[in-house]
Amino acid sequence: MILDKINTPGDLKTLSAEEMNTLADEMRELIIKKVNTTGGHLGPNLGIIEATIAMHYVFNSPIDKIVFDVSHQCYPHKILTGRKEGFTNPEKYLKYTGYTAPEESSHDLFKVGHTSTSVSLATGVAKARDLKGEKYNVIALIGDGSLSGGEAFEGFDNAADLGSNIIIIVNDNDMSIAENHGGLYKNLKALRDNNGKAENNFFKSLGFEYHYVAEGNNINALIKTFKQVKDTNHPVVVHIHTLKGHGLKIAEENKEMFHWVLPGILDASSSALSMPAEDYNSVTKDFILQKASQNPAVVAITAATPGVFGFDREFRNKLGRQYTDVGIAEEHAVAYASALAKSGAKPFLGIMSSFLQRTYDQLSQDLCLNNSPVTMLIYWGGISGADATHLCLFDIPLISNIPNMVYLAPTCKEEYLAMLEYSYRQNEHPVAIRVPSIPLESSGSIDNTDYSILNKYKTVHSGKEVAIIALGSFLPLGKEVQDELNKKLHLDATLINPKFITGCDEELLNSLKENHKLVITLEDGILNGGFGEKIARFYGNSNMKVLNFGADKEFTDRVPLNELYERYHLTKELIVNDIEKCLETAYV
Amino acid sequence: MILDKINTPGDLKTLSAEEMNTLADEMRELIIKKVNTTGGHLGPNLGIIEATIAMHYVFNSPIDKIVFDVSHQCYPHKILTGRKEGFTNPEKYLKYTGYTAPEESSHDLFKVGHTSTSVSLATGVAKARDLKGEKYNVIALIGDGSLSGGEAFEGFDNAADLGSNIIIIVNDNDMSIAENHGGLYKNLKALRDNNGKAENNFFKSLGFEYHYVAEGNNINALIKTFKQVKDTNHPVVVHIHTLKGHGLKIAEENKEMFHWVLPGILDASSSALSMPAEDYNSVTKDFILQKASQNPAVVAITAATPGVFGFDREFRNKLGRQYTDVGIAEEHAVAYASALAKSGAKPFLGIMSSFLQRTYDQLSQDLCLNNSPVTMLIYWGGISGADATHLCLFDIPLISNIPNMVYLAPTCKEEYLAMLEYSYRQNEHPVAIRVPSIPLESSGSIDNTDYSILNKYKTVHSGKEVAIIALGSFLPLGKEVQDELNKKLHLDATLINPKFITGCDEELLNSLKENHKLVITLEDGILNGGFGEKIARFYGNSNMKVLNFGADKEFTDRVPLNELYERYHLTKELIVNDIEKCLETAYV
Repeated sequence: MILDKINTPGDLKTLSAEEMNTLADEMRELIIKKVNTTGGHLGPNLGIIEATIAMHYVFNSPIDKIVFDVSHQCYPHKILTGRKEGFTNPEKYLKYTGYTAPEESSHDLFKVGHTSTSVSLATGVAKARDLKGEKYNVIALIGDGSLSGGEAFEGFDNAADLGSNIIIIVNDNDMSIAENHGGLYKNLKALRDNNGKAENNFFKSLGFEYHYVAEGNNINALIKTFKQVKDTNHPVVVHIHTLKGHGLKIAEENKEMFHWVLPGILDASSSALSMPAEDYNSVTKDFILQKASQNPAVVAITAATPGVFGFDREFRNKLGRQYTDVGIAEEHAVAYASALAKSGAKPFLGIMSSFLQRTYDQLSQDLCLNNSPVTMLIYWGGISGADATHLCLFDIPLISNIPNMVYLAPTCKEEYLAMLEYSYRQNEHPVAIRVPSIPLESSGSIDNTDYSILNKYKTVHSGKEVAIIALGSFLPLGKEVQDELNKKLHLDATLINPKFITGCDEELLNSLKENHKLVITLEDGILNGGFGEKIARFYGNSNMKVLNFGADKEFTDRVPLNELYERYHLTKELIVNDIEKCLETAYV
Repeated sequence: MILDKINTPGDLKTLSAEEMNTLADEMRELIIKKVNTTGGHLGPNLGIIEATIAMHYVFNSPIDKIVFDVSHQCYPHKILTGRKEGFTNPEKYLKYTGYTAPEESSHDLFKVGHTSTSVSLATGVAKARDLKGEKYNVIALIGDGSLSGGEAFEGFDNAADLGSNIIIIVNDNDMSIAENHGGLYKNLKALRDNNGKAENNFFKSLGFEYHYVAEGNNINALIKTFKQVKDTNHPVVVHIHTLKGHGLKIAEENKEMFHWVLPGILDASSSALSMPAEDYNSVTKDFILQKASQNPAVVAITAATPGVFGFDREFRNKLGRQYTDVGIAEEHAVAYASALAKSGAKPFLGIMSSFLQRTYDQLSQDLCLNNSPVTMLIYWGGISGADATHLCLFDIPLISNIPNMVYLAPTCKEEYLAMLEYSYRQNEHPVAIRVPSIPLESSGSIDNTDYSILNKYKTVHSGKEVAIIALGSFLPLGKEVQDELNKKLHLDATLINPKFITGCDEELLNSLKENHKLVITLEDGILNGGFGEKIARFYGNSNMKVLNFGADKEFTDRVPLNELYERYHLTKELIVNDIEKCLETAYV
């Protein structure tokens, strides 16, 4: 294998053109095999192999600095920068993250996982270089999908002003995760269709020198252009046209499905593609389709991640113009939804907890200050073993401290449907629903709760001494704790399903003072700024003891979930131990 | 006066061209007089009078919908839409806000005060119109300065895809608050210099039909073009070249100073321009200049609001290339600063609490996840009588629940300087400093605290029974409460200056249990998700009572500060009353 000879990018420089092509084939095979075993980003990495070889052939990393956007396309880079064992040795498959990670290698500058940051970061790197009087190339590698994000534009605008070396490689595979949307993409198409010529060139309009490489999967063509721009003394864009999924036919033909895949995607017997008959995604889609068929002003919105919510092609086609994919543009998505709602439409905006972080100001100003009756569906909220870049445990502090917002936490299908219906019908508030990240449960009976009576908690079981307030997807854990208290301490605890994240049920909380000594809160998220602290504050002037259970304030990186649950005392045994200890002092 | 005849925009339609010019003069005089009395946005409103008249002459508000960006330029619009008394009658000067406000008039669609939102909002309005099968014009009015904000770009990109009527008026006065920065502005200049022609037109590159009006303060010229685009069936940009401060020579010649002015700016005897000899701005500038002269890698960064921090022209000139104004691009500012710090530079990023809201994800991902040692200076944080759009009380929940961040609250000049020095020298963490929003206090003695020992609170006075933890600018209030407790209850309370917003001093808090029954927290911000709730959580399993004082979760709109202090019990009398009540039960 050619790859045997490659331990640093420098080893590339001795290869012939033919050897580099062979190397690309070897890398492709390794990536396919690994990703089919572990899951991960497939299409983006297959498309960027040749460009990565060419980049490392022409530039001198880590002296020259390469900043990856999202960095979900960094697998070839990892192979070439001393981490090939993560691809050749199945036992090491999980040793390295799927994103750039400075702790792994000096060739990785930043921990990155959200989109549209590379140009901003590269501009900072270049500016530091200039201030320190150093000389090297700074390269940002950004996909076409990421270009629609506001942070990317802000970066481009400022980078154009830098007055020194910065090379932005626009990896244009004519796809975001799903298809692209937005005026910019017509410009990219025009450029692709005319070998880099267009009547108005977006990049040139911002002041960049512009180069086009039609054959973005041709190492020689890439090397030629990269050599031209190397050591430039001004801002340059190199627009390369690549094929997402290049070299794997099924991935080339099913770009959206093969963007990120589950393990076993290529195995005939795989169950990676089979979906449960009913889950929160299917319930959501059915609800929206039903409302959309009755009301032409219903509109479903995504910011380029329809797959997260199961908004598949069939669903999108059925909705037609009642569906908007705004592209990677979460800020716009929120403002757009707010204006739709204020103008009498009925928007449903689906967004993943981690990406919701893009929108704090829009949630506050565009949405909540205007009290627009948007329905937001927050997906994947909760503690997880995810990469540090994709943690989803911050949405409660993010959303729930904004005035006017109603943030709801259903615990079963029926509650979820009742909350959707309430949100759809009301015109008073922005409503966000934390779609449970656990498998769908059905209570079996319709939920007739009037959710327009805000902050009314539900007592699932009335007991005494200890009350367990178990939020959303942690209601089952609350039930377990209740049972364990009964079993271990013969204590008949109260169990409460609060449903409302954004407020305290003061009447209920006050009533607990009569025959309870301790209230515990369970929330599937970070404690700091979250739900439980409000309960602690509420009882601050009383004799009620309060224990808050949830995650610590920390970024975790692929720590297994059960390990996190142990760490945060989120098991029935640990919780009951903590309750025991607290009760001992409470009776003193 | 022509204005006497104008009560609705419809009344404009009968005016002759000459009458409209007279009307513009009348409006100009009223705006100057009012703003000189009340303070407010002057330059932006003087520049847009003619365009506002032309818009309302051609379009039919409120059937046609006009969405203002920032809406700091809506004074002429308010005059023409039934609210002229707010300009003609000094007693009504404060009746209407300085921003669009739907509760005032059906001609105002949204409550807006932050930049770069109009195109997103207008796209939502237009989409709702289309879904509902209605017909009217949707107009967004956006200034050139706002174009650099990511949300604006996301809006433009999506608006271009709308496939129906949307008219974006780009009000180009060649200024942000300060001068513009960024590649886009070279394109605007090229367009202005060549009567709307440029080799690459930014707006056309996104797919917009493009019109240029060179004389943006000429009502006739504007009317002509607005008529051309009225009822268009596709997305259109009308680029108008206006003069900021038009018609007031001193404002035309001092655009930055006259963007927003204090009352009395035009009075010869005015003290509006005089600055105190020493304040937190001057201390900050001196510190940065000193470090910058010693270290070429020191860089001060602003996102288009240098005036907020007193980064005046002299300061900017002295820093030269060690100063970056990224334009209105807060997201980029944070990512850029993070990359600078990671690359060995020493960035100081100044940002106003309200505009910080734009950056949650960048704070989390680009900055804190990468643990980049940036120094952030957060200005104006605290409860205020400001407009609902410019409240500055959310920064504590926003920043302090993000892992790795160190958020500091100095209470005097010496602490502030020691914190600046600590942040400058360390390389471990992102550090944010909440620059006190109260007049500068000097303790008179150098602060030798080692701030690298995190979360160490300072006991100002050791007492018993009650401990007052008074954060940052509320330390003086804490002292007042301490004195009042002494006076009224003969109670020698403990006073603590926590300094660290982002953590609990567990040792100190535990030690308080020995001889204290009650801890109160005072914070100049919203309680929800803030500092005090962490203290309440900490003591949840103990017998310590906790009372948290701070603002409720609500948007307030120009409510006088003393009224808010009463409402939130933030006076020594009300706090001591609450303490008394709590102590009564504590002894039961």
